[in-house]
Amino acid sequence: MDFLDILTKKRNGIKLTKQEIDFFITGVTNGTIPDYQISAFLMAVYFQSLDEEETAYMTLAMANSGETLNLCSISGFKVDKHSTGGVADTTTLILAPLVASVGIPVIKMSGRGLGFSGGTIDKLESIPHFNVEVSQQQALQWAKQSNIVIMGQSKNLTPADKILYALRDVTATVESIPLIASSIMSKKIAAGADGIVLDVKCGNGAFMKTLENAQKLGKCMASMGHHVGKKVTVVISSMSQPLGNYIGNRLEVIEAIETLKGNISGDLLTVSLTLGANMLLLSGKVSTEQKGKELLLQNIQNGKGLEKFKQLLQQQSADTNIIHDYNLLALSPCKLLLKANASGYIYAVDTDCIGMASQQTGAGRKQKTDAIDFGAGIILKKRIGDVVEKGEILAEVYSSSEQKCQSAVLLLQNAIHISNIAPDTSPLILDIISM
Amino acid sequence: MDFLDILTKKRNGIKLTKQEIDFFITGVTNGTIPDYQISAFLMAVYFQSLDEEETAYMTLAMANSGETLNLCSISGFKVDKHSTGGVADTTTLILAPLVASVGIPVIKMSGRGLGFSGGTIDKLESIPHFNVEVSQQQALQWAKQSNIVIMGQSKNLTPADKILYALRDVTATVESIPLIASSIMSKKIAAGADGIVLDVKCGNGAFMKTLENAQKLGKCMASMGHHVGKKVTVVISSMSQPLGNYIGNRLEVIEAIETLKGNISGDLLTVSLTLGANMLLLSGKVSTEQKGKELLLQNIQNGKGLEKFKQLLQQQSADTNIIHDYNLLALSPCKLLLKANASGYIYAVDTDCIGMASQQTGAGRKQKTDAIDFGAGIILKKRIGDVVEKGEILAEVYSSSEQKCQSAVLLLQNAIHISNIAPDTSPLILDIISM
Repeated sequence: MDFLDILTKKRNGIKLTKQEIDFFITGVTNGTIPDYQISAFLMAVYFQSLDEEETAYMTLAMANSGETLNLCSISGFKVDKHSTGGVADTTTLILAPLVASVGIPVIKMSGRGLGFSGGTIDKLESIPHFNVEVSQQQALQWAKQSNIVIMGQSKNLTPADKILYALRDVTATVESIPLIASSIMSKKIAAGADGIVLDVKCGNGAFMKTLENAQKLGKCMASMGHHVGKKVTVVISSMSQPLGNYIGNRLEVIEAIETLKGNISGDLLTVSLTLGANMLLLSGKVSTEQKGKELLLQNIQNGKGLEKFKQLLQQQSADTNIIHDYNLLALSPCKLLLKANASGYIYAVDTDCIGMASQQTGAGRKQKTDAIDFGAGIILKKRIGDVVEKGEILAEVYSSSEQKCQSAVLLLQNAIHISNIAPDTSPLILDIISM
Repeated sequence: MDFLDILTKKRNGIKLTKQEIDFFITGVTNGTIPDYQISAFLMAVYFQSLDEEETAYMTLAMANSGETLNLCSISGFKVDKHSTGGVADTTTLILAPLVASVGIPVIKMSGRGLGFSGGTIDKLESIPHFNVEVSQQQALQWAKQSNIVIMGQSKNLTPADKILYALRDVTATVESIPLIASSIMSKKIAAGADGIVLDVKCGNGAFMKTLENAQKLGKCMASMGHHVGKKVTVVISSMSQPLGNYIGNRLEVIEAIETLKGNISGDLLTVSLTLGANMLLLSGKVSTEQKGKELLLQNIQNGKGLEKFKQLLQQQSADTNIIHDYNLLALSPCKLLLKANASGYIYAVDTDCIGMASQQTGAGRKQKTDAIDFGAGIILKKRIGDVVEKGEILAEVYSSSEQKCQSAVLLLQNAIHISNIAPDTSPLILDIISM
């Protein structure tokens, strides 16, 4: 087989066979197909796309390109969850302990943040001594004991995806739905779960800006799950403002704990419960989403969720005292307030711009190699639809220097739009797709 | 300027500026843009194309990416000629001496053959001692003395084109009209002529299979000439059968000499006169194509064209005796005949397949590094429309081994279609475009 023939075929819009896609992924993994042919292929896929079957073949080939996690020794239906990424998207820290607390095993490999989206692993590492580097053997043992493990991705997980992703990033081929879908799904399949709940974010703080595109991606991933024999539910949720009010690693840990304590309700809790309930639904633990939500909410009220979170901390070497003493999650020393320059309604926010502001404080990375300031970030005091008076505090900004605080405040000022017209209320959960 | 932005822009179908195209070609030339970004860009251009202006900017940037030939010291209007390549396309060896013999300087840089098309430089090198490696200084001196120089391309001519061409070849991005046009035109512009006659071949032995595509390419190159201030005439000629009857390097030299001697007429002569006459027309030497043809034909009859060819040989160190003694152009020792397996009309030929047969004899290259057997090739005895009797000789095949002869004969057998229906006659010159 000659890769140039495969490349020409895709360029001409002809469907590839399983053998051809396997040949491609093998060549990518072992380096026999040169970068310049891979990138030309990715651009051809950008224009000619891949159909459901081709995407499924590619996903499976990528999932099998490296190490895979074998969860057979864990009894019960294992459900994984993935979010396409957004701002103040702290759902994993809330739903993972909640779902585990009702008896469903959650073994989750998470990633780090880049650009304006945060990453679960960074948030966990902001907790003193939390250990995310967990061997397969250790993970399985813990899962059996506690029903919960959250760890960084194994270096050998889906090496083909790592190579393709790095190339897509520098060749303007990121925005291809089958390529996004196969990148996400290959990692989830390699991570071994029986069912997957996907949170596709949609709006100005998400990769998918329109509901139409979010639905396309959602359907693509759901049908792929169907092709490879995994139960998949896709929740499309709004990212037209940060999901929680706390943005930044330690700040998001605090908001998650407060939510598990039952002290905070709102969009973050709603999306966490929706995703968690759909995990319970997939696993067969409950028969309706509503029953799932009730079960999870009950475990907030009775403290079982928080207890499971404490167990996770203890198991992964972190200081459990943080749950009651937030001084152990020290914030960055400089603090600046953003005040409203007019009275009116919070009409709209540029969510990606708020993400950039958070990055500016030191809470996020511009480059993969950037260090993170765990104590930096933003607390938003108002959400869309809220009424504000001129001079009222809109946000608190934390950073290591006055200068960083100021540049973050400047970005925030431009990101939050006040109007004397009340905004239309728009739904938080935009669609749920399952196959 | 960031190349990823330029790549994204082109992917999105947005027109690039001169500055962006210059940045691209500079980055290609000096190696600051990596291969994988270049190939993604080429694939984006395959899908989104380049408009006339973008193609002109790219062509000029490529022309200026290396050495250029300065022909200012040669008086008069300098006309160059280029063919997109075909089988038995020996026009340069006929028209260059003819045009030079009527007083128009012809300073031509030619290329080598690859695949089923031959190259003028290989044909000249098949003449004992012919020297194609000529310095700029030497070329200018000879042009002043004799009005004619034919030489290999300087190594530093259009380095950007060399890099792009090599990448296009392995990334399925050859078949893009603006990329083909800019590749051809950049070399012609760097070679310094005031006017250019382009022979765009069209048919089953050419890169452009349909008249529509040939016209698109022709118009693109003509308009580009207009943009960069060069007079350009495009002749679209048929390549639905080999242009001459002799295929292979020495065989084509012999056919050219026989044509200059006035012993052969037919399609090869017709196309040579058409191209040559258009060169004279561009230069202002004649007022109509017809007058140009008459002038050239006159110099065949009076021997001035052949005399100019002899002068070219002498000047470039070759043995002038070859003109009268073809034994000095020895053919390969093995000879095999292809005979008609049925009676009827020659209905159609697969021209590219005949090119492959010629390659099989050793007359052409599969890989750039392959050596050529100068004495190998094919003499066709029949053309489309000719009547043949079963058992009559259709072709003579020359090669260094029986085995190579046999595999060439096999290809030829499949390439020549005999029918009891007479084929429609189709025109040889399909279109002439000038701007």
